[in-house]
Order: sequence, then structure tokens, then C-alpha cells
Amino acid sequence: MTVATFLDTLQARIPANAIVTDADAIAPWLTDWRGRWTGASPALLQPSTTADVAAIVQAAKAHGVALVPQGGNSSMVGGATPPADGSAVLLSLRRMNCIRALGPDHAVVEAGVILETLQNAAAEEGARFPLDLGARGSATVGGLASTNAGGTQVLRFGTMRAQVLGMEAVLSGGLIHDSLSGLKKDNRGVSLDHLLIGAEGTLGVITALRLRLVPGKVQRAAAWIGLDDPHQALALLRRLEAATDRIEAFELIPDASLQRVLRHIPQTRAPLAGSWPWHVLVEAVVSAADEPPQQLLEQLLGDAPIGDAVIAQSDAHTEAMWRIRHSISEAERTDGPAAQHDISLPIDHVPAFLTEEARLIERRFSGTEATGYGHLGDGNVHFHVRAAAGAPRDWADGPEGKAVSALVHDLVTRAGGSISAEHGIGQMKKDELARLASPARMQALRAIKSAMDPHGIFNPGKLV
Amino acid sequence: MTVATFLDTLQARIPANAIVTDADAIAPWLTDWRGRWTGASPALLQPSTTADVAAIVQAAKAHGVALVPQGGNSSMVGGATPPADGSAVLLSLRRMNCIRALGPDHAVVEAGVILETLQNAAAEEGARFPLDLGARGSATVGGLASTNAGGTQVLRFGTMRAQVLGMEAVLSGGLIHDSLSGLKKDNRGVSLDHLLIGAEGTLGVITALRLRLVPGKVQRAAAWIGLDDPHQALALLRRLEAATDRIEAFELIPDASLQRVLRHIPQTRAPLAGSWPWHVLVEAVVSAADEPPQQLLEQLLGDAPIGDAVIAQSDAHTEAMWRIRHSISEAERTDGPAAQHDISLPIDHVPAFLTEEARLIERRFSGTEATGYGHLGDGNVHFHVRAAAGAPRDWADGPEGKAVSALVHDLVTRAGGSISAEHGIGQMKKDELARLASPARMQALRAIKSAMDPHGIFNPGKLV
Repeated sequence: MTVATFLDTLQARIPANAIVTDADAIAPWLTDWRGRWTGASPALLQPSTTADVAAIVQAAKAHGVALVPQGGNSSMVGGATPPADGSAVLLSLRRMNCIRALGPDHAVVEAGVILETLQNAAAEEGARFPLDLGARGSATVGGLASTNAGGTQVLRFGTMRAQVLGMEAVLSGGLIHDSLSGLKKDNRGVSLDHLLIGAEGTLGVITALRLRLVPGKVQRAAAWIGLDDPHQALALLRRLEAATDRIEAFELIPDASLQRVLRHIPQTRAPLAGSWPWHVLVEAVVSAADEPPQQLLEQLLGDAPIGDAVIAQSDAHTEAMWRIRHSISEAERTDGPAAQHDISLPIDHVPAFLTEEARLIERRFSGTEATGYGHLGDGNVHFHVRAAAGAPRDWADGPEGKAVSALVHDLVTRAGGSISAEHGIGQMKKDELARLASPARMQALRAIKSAMDPHGIFNPGKLV
Repeated sequence: MTVATFLDTLQARIPANAIVTDADAIAPWLTDWRGRWTGASPALLQPSTTADVAAIVQAAKAHGVALVPQGGNSSMVGGATPPADGSAVLLSLRRMNCIRALGPDHAVVEAGVILETLQNAAAEEGARFPLDLGARGSATVGGLASTNAGGTQVLRFGTMRAQVLGMEAVLSGGLIHDSLSGLKKDNRGVSLDHLLIGAEGTLGVITALRLRLVPGKVQRAAAWIGLDDPHQALALLRRLEAATDRIEAFELIPDASLQRVLRHIPQTRAPLAGSWPWHVLVEAVVSAADEPPQQLLEQLLGDAPIGDAVIAQSDAHTEAMWRIRHSISEAERTDGPAAQHDISLPIDHVPAFLTEEARLIERRFSGTEATGYGHLGDGNVHFHVRAAAGAPRDWADGPEGKAVSALVHDLVTRAGGSISAEHGIGQMKKDELARLASPARMQALRAIKSAMDPHGIFNPGKLV
């Protein structure tokens, strides 16, 4: 068997504890965290050095064995789950978890370092890693870069792509690409760093990253704003953007989502006394030496055309507002089945999508309820279509749920949007990508995959 | 002849005035602006629509004719000059010069729009395009993106890569890639935009760009600082970076360069009364509503460990300081032959390179003088090695000049730097790239070129 001889070869080249064949030890990593995909793998490789990763990739080529790179296994699209036929081997980067260097404006970290670990290490240096998301306790920086992760701070700081200053990666045949010296200007042809960011491990294996840090000594404050409709929210966003570069979050929330949170999540209460059809959570962050952020928010919101607003006067108050935002997903889940979509749109088109296109979907699929919440400032909404009452639990994966998703993706594509804003393609959206992407994009993605991975070693069955 | 049938085919597909075969009209575009490379081309194609570019690329594939995309013809490395054998046809993007849209935070512009035109159009909207360089009157945005141009504002705003929000480009076979809708989040696999940025026209032809604009209503002021050595300059840079994000330029200048400017360039005078071995020109830019930038500079420089400093109190004073910086290249040229290098280094290594490595080069090549000036904040110095007295005018292209350049490139590579910081590779540095790039980089660059341009249509003889 090919895999058996591959593992034999590896025994001689990498430490014994880097090769796990015990089925019980492998099992937890064969299913994605939401339990939607389960694969099989005869072994789990867990190297702790770049040289060992290179040796694995070399041997994989020699024996024609495919590898599935895995970080925290927190993919939303099955991007780190191996194929079900056991033909590929899991390559975990979790033991490559060394923080190689840390300065006031950068960190050099191995791929397996967990986001929260990096955030804490940066904070100890008085710095801040400006990317945050719900899976911070398990997602690794290698996975974040491979999927160009987004999160809640993209508005000011950009996605993971904007945080990567340099990279170490193992490419086809085991050759090592190293740009960790972190040059600010380097025009030696196509950027390999940018090629690997968002490639979902299909072109090579990221082993380390040089990441930017920003000054950590800051004051922050949130405000909760009641509005009549998403058009008003967009106008407010544009007004704030023109006035300051200190806004870090601008989250749009329909009242239905807020009400679900208040109903299902303990210890939550409505931030405003009155009732509004739409809400915005905005956060301002200023340096420690500046005037308090509450003053900035008061000044910005003072005469803005909005319904009502409350500015958090304490960290606890700010956290209570964020608790509502972060609980929406959980509250929505307890309230019955829904088809969920991680989409992005040109920002100016978001309000119309959340009203006109949402109504069109509800008319087409009677009894459904279409709403979106999320990062208006990034044009990225989590667009949920809830099933009609009495629908089965697995409605989203059934024929009507799939038809709903296809329509959502059609409407998004027609509006110049993306069917994957931040979660990637993985296994989940591979067919929809092939159905909806332009011929230019599909030709290029396939050509690049063949060129960078001619032996089909890297993360088979994902993306293209 | 293949080219003749190619042109015949085009006659039927694109407007007659888009095909120029008059040798006199073609001639000015066959030589680069510094007169270092001259090529030949039987025709100059000058389409004015994306559809026409697509038709040209389709026909080029059918007839096996290569195309040399050209913008303002201001390449520093022969990147837009056709091969001398006349086998390729010039494809000028200059007639694609429409500003399709302009808003407060973005512009959608065709590839042939000249940088200065864009800057002025943005200014009329109260906005600013945050990239500037000497060739602003001829360089086109398509060329700036294809070469990932840098310039004087990279410190705060990044290179051209950071300005590109979306792109339209014609890829192999004439397929059109279009991301002009400008999504802030889009994770549908590898980013084709980032693949084409810096590819020097070897993977496709950029026809339009969506570019970011920043608020234009600002106040600016420069300061000139005298220092003992570049280590002190680096310490000052780090101090300023930690204190504010309003510094837009941080230029390092050795006294020898200043003295050459004072000697050769009319209407220049020393900014400081005393004599210093090294100088820094720093510029702070704040919003129109803020306190004057002079106050920020006074506060930042007040107790900094520097030699001496003067803060410009008027726009004219600021401009006089910049005139010195922008005249260095001209002053250096009038003072005899030199081998010039556009290199970048990890920023912390720049001071040592400008002292220790510079002395090493001078010892190895007796009578030479090695100095660097430029964008310390980007790790990017223009590193000049001046010939010994009495050297011939073409010394830099002779055996000693070439040996000097090879040594400079060796030392840069050893320090984790780049042999091309902002000018690209083109024809000029192709051999040096192949000699010094890592096997991983060369393998990837070649594989991507073959994948994206299987018929060898795009900009032959450049990069790889």
C-alpha cells in the first residue's frame, strides 16, 4: 500500500512521535467542529519543525500520497477535513507552536500558534494583534492565513492578508519559501505570500508567519444606535468614515435578531428603551493618551440623523453590547432551522439586499424569513433564511434549503458580490464556486493549482 | 509572416485607428526613457476599450504573437521595451484613459490614466490618492499596479498593492477578470488581483483598477534633522512610529548627497546651520481640523536624541526641503559614473549596511565611494557606488561596475533583503534574479508563468 511505504519512509526521516497511527488519537481530527463532514486518515503527522514538514512533503511527492494540512480544525466549510476514502494523510501543524520573535510592531510565529495565545503574548508587550474572531481559542495563525480570515476588526485593520508581513512555507517537492525577514518593499515578481494567503492549503503548507502588531495601549467604547432602516445605517457609516479613522467595528443588527437574543440568551437586556427596526453597534478605539472615546462618539453621533443612541460609559457596558452581537448566532440556532450564508456585497448594495432581495426570497419560498446581520462596514453580512414553521431540523441541507442557497448565491453574484466573504470555499462551496465564478477566475484557479501542485499533494478535494 | 496575418485578423475586429504601423509613430516607444534598451515592433496597438484588448489577446493566441504591454514607458528596468528581434507587438494602454467613477474613498480608472491626472481628479473631490513618485507626469496606473510601484508615501499608506481595491484584466485566451465591484472581503480562493500586482505584465493585461482614495483635506509640514549616524536615524524612526501614525515620509540622506545637491542644483541651501554627517527629512500630515502639524513635530522632536532640527514653518519651506531630496538623483548624475541599486533590507539592518557593508565594498573596489539615501522607513535605500576618479562614463555597465553590483546583490541577499525594492525585475535584473532567488521562488515563478500564460503571449523576455 502506498501510504504504508510512505509512512515507512517517514520513520527514517522524522521523529517517531511526529507519526501517530493510533485510530483513537486520530479520530477527533477527522470531523469538522460543526460535525458536518467526516473523513478518514490512516495517520496523523504532527511535525514540530519546518525541516520535518519539508521531509514529509518530499516523501509525499515520492510516494504519491496527498496531505491535508490542519490547524485548529475550526473551518466552517470542511476545509481541513480529509477525504472519506482514507487516501490522504492528516498533516497537523499544531505542534509548530513556537513564538520565534516578538517586538512592538511585529511577531514571528509558527503556524500552529493559537490566535488567543498570540493576542495574549502581544498584550504582554503592550501591543495588539489586530484580528479577532469567535474561534480565537482554537484557530491557528497558519489556518487564519491560509483562509485569509476576517473577523470583527476588518473595518480598520483589514483581513488576515493585511496582517501578514512575511511567511515561511513548504512548496511542491519540499522546497522552502522564506520571506520572514519582513521586507516592506520587495518587487521580485509575483508575491508568493499573497498567493498562499487564501489558497486554503491547496498550493503549499504555511509553517510560520511574520505578523504585524499595532500599539496596544488604547481606550475603547461602544455605542448602540437605533435606526429606521439599513439605508440610514449606511449613511451613518459613510459619515463616520469621513470624520475619523478610529472606528473599529460597525455591526448592523435587525430587530428580529436582537429580540431572539433577548428571548434565548440569559443576562441580556435591550440597550435602548425605545423600539427600532434596525440597530447598529459601533466601537471607537483611541490611543491611551487621547481624550476618552466616549467624547469622540458623542461628537460624531450628536447631530447625526439616527433614531436614538446610547454610548457605553464603562467597559462592562461595552461588553454587554458586544455580548448581544456575539450571541446572535447561538440565539438563531435555538430558534429552528435556517440556511446560513457568508456573503459579501459592494457596501452600497447591502441595504437594498437586506430589504428588496430579502423580500424576493421570502416571496419565492413561502413562510421563510430572510434577514442579515454583521459587518456592514466590510459589506459582509451573515445572511440567514429561516425555514417556515414545522420544517425538519435538516431543512437547510434538503431540497428547499439548497434551492434557497442557490438563489441567494445567484442574487449575490448578480450584484457583484462574493459567495464566500470570510469562510472560504473548502468542500462546502466547491460546486457553487464552479457554477458561479467567471470563466477567467476558474481557468486561473485551476491553472495555478496544477502549476503549484503538479502531483496533487496539497489538500485534495478542496477549492477547485 | 505570423505578425502580418495577426494584424490582418485584427483589422476586422478592432477599430482601424487602434492599429499603428507607421514606423515614425512607433519609434518613440521602442526605447526606454533612460535610453538603456531599444527594441523593435512591427506595430503599435492602442485599443480604447477592454473588449478590444480581449480581441487582441485572443488573436495573439491564435497567431502565436507575443504582446508587450506598455503604459507611460517609464520603467527603470526595461520592463516595457519589446525584444530587439521584432517578434512581439507593442500593446499601449494609453488610450484607455477614462476615469469611470470617482467618489470620496475610491476611483475606478482605466489602466492608461496618468498618475498626475488621477491625483488632480481626486483633489478636486477633496480626496487624495496616497501614492506619489517622480514619474507622476507619465506613469500610468496600469503600469504602477503591474510593477507594484512604491514612492514617497509607502511609510504610511503602503505600496500600490495597498491601494488596489479591485481590478479588471484580460487573461490568457482573452478571458476577462473583473473584481471592480471592490469587495472588502472575498475569499473565493487565490486572489487574482494580488497575483497580477507586481507580475510586470507577464501574466495578463490590467485594463482598469478600483483604487482607494483617502481624505484630502490635510495640513502638512516637514522637518530637517541633523544626526551623527544612521543608527540614530533608526532610533528616531522607531520613536516616531510608536508615538503617532501621522508620519508620511522618513527619508535618510548622507551629507555627501546633500553637499552634491548644494553644489550642483541652483537655488538650494543647507537647511541647518551646523554640519552633520547624516540627515533625515520627515513629514507629518494631519487632518485639516487638527492642530497644526508643526506642533506635532515640535512635540515629537523636542527631547528626541538628535543632533539638530528645523521645522518648516510654511509650505514654501517644506517644499524647499523636498527639493533637496528630489534633486539628489540629478546631482549624483552630474558628478560622474556610479552603479545604482534599488535595494531593500530588513529595516533594522539598514544602518549597518550603510556603514559596514558600504566600507567593505569600498575596500574591495579601491577608490569607489558607497552611499545610500532614501526611504529608511521602508527599508528601501537607493544604494550608489561611485566609480574612482577618471573612470569612463559607462563604468557601471563595464566589468568593474558589474562586479560591484553583483557584490551589492550578494550582500543584500545574505541580509535577507531584495535586489529589487520598487523598480521590478524587467530585463535588467532577470539574470540576477535567477542567480540569487531561492529555488522555491524560482520554481514557483516559472510554474505560475507557464500556467497563466501557456502560449507565451504576455511580455516575453521579462522577469522569468
